[in-house]
Amino acid sequence: MEKKTLLTDCPDAMGLISKITNICYKHQLNIVHNNEFVDHSHSQFFMRTELEGYFNDETFLFDLDRALPEGSHRRLVGSQRKRVVIMVTKEAHCLGDILVKAFDGTLDIDIAAIVGNYDHLGSLAEKFDIPFHHVCHEGLSREEHEAKLQDAIDQYSPDYIVLAKFMRILTPSFVAKYPSKIINIHHSFLPAFIGAKPYQQAFERGVKIIGATAHFVTNDLDEGPIITQNVIPVDHNFSAADMARAGRDVEKSVLSKALGLVIDDRVFVYGNRTVIL
Amino acid sequence: MEKKTLLTDCPDAMGLISKITNICYKHQLNIVHNNEFVDHSHSQFFMRTELEGYFNDETFLFDLDRALPEGSHRRLVGSQRKRVVIMVTKEAHCLGDILVKAFDGTLDIDIAAIVGNYDHLGSLAEKFDIPFHHVCHEGLSREEHEAKLQDAIDQYSPDYIVLAKFMRILTPSFVAKYPSKIINIHHSFLPAFIGAKPYQQAFERGVKIIGATAHFVTNDLDEGPIITQNVIPVDHNFSAADMARAGRDVEKSVLSKALGLVIDDRVFVYGNRTVIL
Amino acid sequence: MEKKTLLTDCPDAMGLISKITNICYKHQLNIVHNNEFVDHSHSQFFMRTELEGYFNDETFLFDLDRALPEGSHRRLVGSQRKRVVIMVTKEAHCLGDILVKAFDGTLDIDIAAIVGNYDHLGSLAEKFDIPFHHVCHEGLSREEHEAKLQDAIDQYSPDYIVLAKFMRILTPSFVAKYPSKIINIHHSFLPAFIGAKPYQQAFERGVKIIGATAHFVTNDLDEGPIITQNVIPVDHNFSAADMARAGRDVEKSVLSKALGLVIDDRVFVYGNRTVIL
Amino acid sequence: MEKKTLLTDCPDAMGLISKITNICYKHQLNIVHNNEFVDHSHSQFFMRTELEGYFNDETFLFDLDRALPEGSHRRLVGSQRKRVVIMVTKEAHCLGDILVKAFDGTLDIDIAAIVGNYDHLGSLAEKFDIPFHHVCHEGLSREEHEAKLQDAIDQYSPDYIVLAKFMRILTPSFVAKYPSKIINIHHSFLPAFIGAKPYQQAFERGVKIIGATAHFVTNDLDEGPIITQNVIPVDHNFSAADMARAGRDVEKSVLSKALGLVIDDRVFVYGNRTVIL
Repeated sequence: MEKKTLLTDCPDAMGLISKITNICYKHQLNIVHNNEFVDHSHSQFFMRTELEGYFNDETFLFDLDRALPEGSHRRLVGSQRKRVVIMVTKEAHCLGDILVKAFDGTLDIDIAAIVGNYDHLGSLAEKFDIPFHHVCHEGLSREEHEAKLQDAIDQYSPDYIVLAKFMRILTPSFVAKYPSKIINIHHSFLPAFIGAKPYQQAFERGVKIIGATAHFVTNDLDEGPIITQNVIPVDHNFSAADMARAGRDVEKSVLSKALGLVIDDRVFVYGNRTVIL
Repeated sequence: MEKKTLLTDCPDAMGLISKITNICYKHQLNIVHNNEFVDHSHSQFFMRTELEGYFNDETFLFDLDRALPEGSHRRLVGSQRKRVVIMVTKEAHCLGDILVKAFDGTLDIDIAAIVGNYDHLGSLAEKFDIPFHHVCHEGLSREEHEAKLQDAIDQYSPDYIVLAKFMRILTPSFVAKYPSKIINIHHSFLPAFIGAKPYQQAFERGVKIIGATAHFVTNDLDEGPIITQNVIPVDHNFSAADMARAGRDVEKSVLSKALGLVIDDRVFVYGNRTVIL
Repeated sequence: MEKKTLLTDCPDAMGLISKITNICYKHQLNIVHNNEFVDHSHSQFFMRTELEGYFNDETFLFDLDRALPEGSHRRLVGSQRKRVVIMVTKEAHCLGDILVKAFDGTLDIDIAAIVGNYDHLGSLAEKFDIPFHHVCHEGLSREEHEAKLQDAIDQYSPDYIVLAKFMRILTPSFVAKYPSKIINIHHSFLPAFIGAKPYQQAFERGVKIIGATAHFVTNDLDEGPIITQNVIPVDHNFSAADMARAGRDVEKSVLSKALGLVIDDRVFVYGNRTVIL
Repeated sequence: MEKKTLLTDCPDAMGLISKITNICYKHQLNIVHNNEFVDHSHSQFFMRTELEGYFNDETFLFDLDRALPEGSHRRLVGSQRKRVVIMVTKEAHCLGDILVKAFDGTLDIDIAAIVGNYDHLGSLAEKFDIPFHHVCHEGLSREEHEAKLQDAIDQYSPDYIVLAKFMRILTPSFVAKYPSKIINIHHSFLPAFIGAKPYQQAFERGVKIIGATAHFVTNDLDEGPIITQNVIPVDHNFSAADMARAGRDVEKSVLSKALGLVIDDRVFVYGNRTVIL
């Protein structure tokens, strides 16, 4: 018996659930979990179906493709562990959280490598026996630097790239190479405080809550589809530095949670939004 | 075109989603929203299906009953407004919240009557033109009092009875008359601080968070199936009275939220638990 | 024995707590609660002192003024109930919450009047026997409308004006007449989604959390000092209308909480920030 | 210039703030932060004063002792880093979080050693070059085991002992050796679900929120003074195992937060309660 997950994303039509689940039934695949969502404003249908049984992928997908309307996307995903490359700068908390969670199995991922534009976190990578690539940006054009980053990353053929407080802006051409594969943590409750120094901005605005946002990276800075967000309360006692310190826990838990959702194939990207099933 | 909601609760079996949605499809009923849940530990299947179309209830349910396994429960609920009787003692906040939410349509209910064991809230009921019954408990045995409560309630044939800070314990025989129909707000994060004076208990224990719990009332005091809960932070500055004051907002929002879920037919009661779809 | 609250706001200096509390001690005033805060980045000192005893305001303030550095502000506030005028448009939830909280004493305020640019909420005002002024904006210039609003308000000499979902933008000249006296609820987690239709903006951005912000109104739209904020989670199931419905509870609780802090003289306005003691 | 923190805990009396801050002023010590709290129900006064200046501890404390009422406790704490011994069983998340936070300076502690009744976490300790003591409980009486634990701990003379998911019950005689020095994380929102398997208990009760509680350990199991608590929402989709997995993040952040408060000398223990200034 195997476990696989069917992800369906197609224009809405009458009887879709019936058609898809009929095919599962016909193939003697047991539905362990099923979630669906219809965006009625865009008439788009999403379904995530955890299946158990003996799969003949070819005939199953053949049957599905005949049943689904034009413009459908469907994927049948096996349960193999996802490969991840983590990009960092100097801050340890997000990286450290992912490392510990991979160590104890909370995150079922294979951390292929860590890439830093500084070498500050090399010793932390080494503790967990993960290859660390120091790809220094100094003296390089943005394009030259990104070419080197790409070299470092691509040798591992990662399923996902996690920006764990990687503090460099990536160019559209770099981002375009990894569509819906780069996950970033932004240290604000987006869309508040886009751009640099969000805690300083938050301090100056005098907000009473700060947050963090995990999102897929697209061409527009801090504008990609949001996966998850969380917040913590602050008050007048917090300097910008206090906010940054207090924000670490929420940053890391938001990023780890987003990564967990993505590797469990629970996140559909849809325009600039996500549907999480 | 009508809207109805199908609620299915039955032993799990292969192909259930397929069978049920096939029948909807065959009857030309469009699935507007669908949610299902399988409790794998008890092999129990739950599904809530919002349907739109031209209903022939009889043939639709006939087809369903032939398809569903033995031991199934299913209900097809129309969109008529639910009738509610609210029971109170002296505190206004939960009642006031429900009254305002019924007034502005946030809660789509028909408040048939308010029953109080004190008359403190009669003037509030009157403001909103709701019949108020003062059923004083003084000088009566518990049975006599409950007989009078029952008289006051039953003339309205309510779908649900809401205990909006009704501070009397109801006997098992009273409760048994309204199975899964009585919703209570308990002013603690159950199962912490069962029984009387939960804020005083919370203060004495020195907790840093207080909460409220909305639950169906069963024979065991504060032990019925939980519908929803929420909490707020407190600290050493809070006396028991401060906690009670701060707790009002969370009590009322938890009770209103639970009531909203119940009247939308989203709550399945299941052993001592709820499944909310 | 009387209770009064001393509010001190002055440039920081060594020994300020000592000097102020010495004067209280000398005047035989017991300190029931004391909170202070120093903004070290601006060297500004804030203290809120709840006092109990027999007050000679004149000699007490005379002693204080001699002890405090130049540029100090201090106020000795008695415990009389604050007068409030509430401005509304069509939505009932914030107004309803304040009315019920004034009714049951949760908010110890005197609601002098309700002013609406529509008459939708007149019946709700009437239930609670509060004068309602319908000041229609149709056919009037902004200045003419605000002149009429001002007439309606000023006859009650309110301590504070609460914009309880008042959906008109007020001009700087109107706002300037009531400095640090107008409290607004904005239905977003500011500074995200400034301006019109924040829930629609939130929906389009695909955020996973929505919020509400209570702030003092200054000349810049949605830019005044923030008093309090809160948030609730949302997901892909929420349309913009669903967000608006779900947001009502957080809007009203944030506004009521801010109002409670303000009438308890716990909020210092300080540049574009608040210090809450 | 040095920084020290004065912690005062004494029967309430008129003029205490004045007397204490006068002495600071007289000794030319600048008050960087000051917080005080009076428990009016027990007439007990608490004050935490961060001071900056040139300290003569002896004369300063002499002056203080003359000014404070009988039954006073006061401590003047320097800014040296606290020594901590961490006790664990098999779960890595709380230990991992503290290790990463000590690594990047978020927690300014000296982790002297890690003591485990299993050896599962020895490799994690080794990664961070912390001595690990495997003190196996098998084949030993509780007293024998605790004697060995004590040997392992006492050689490091720790300021605090952190039970980071140490899953053995400690005897009163062991606990009595380290009064107000042992910090435990309990994986429930205490006082709900005291004792073993709290997530299983939470699952069976059908709660909609789970939590974690950090507290000082006293003789009564799970009954010591609570330092901090936090919660996360759950629903019917969560099995007991899912709750345990989801609870890890809240457990570790609650424990780390409590530890941070304790090492910053912000926690007063007071009966079975804490005052956090």
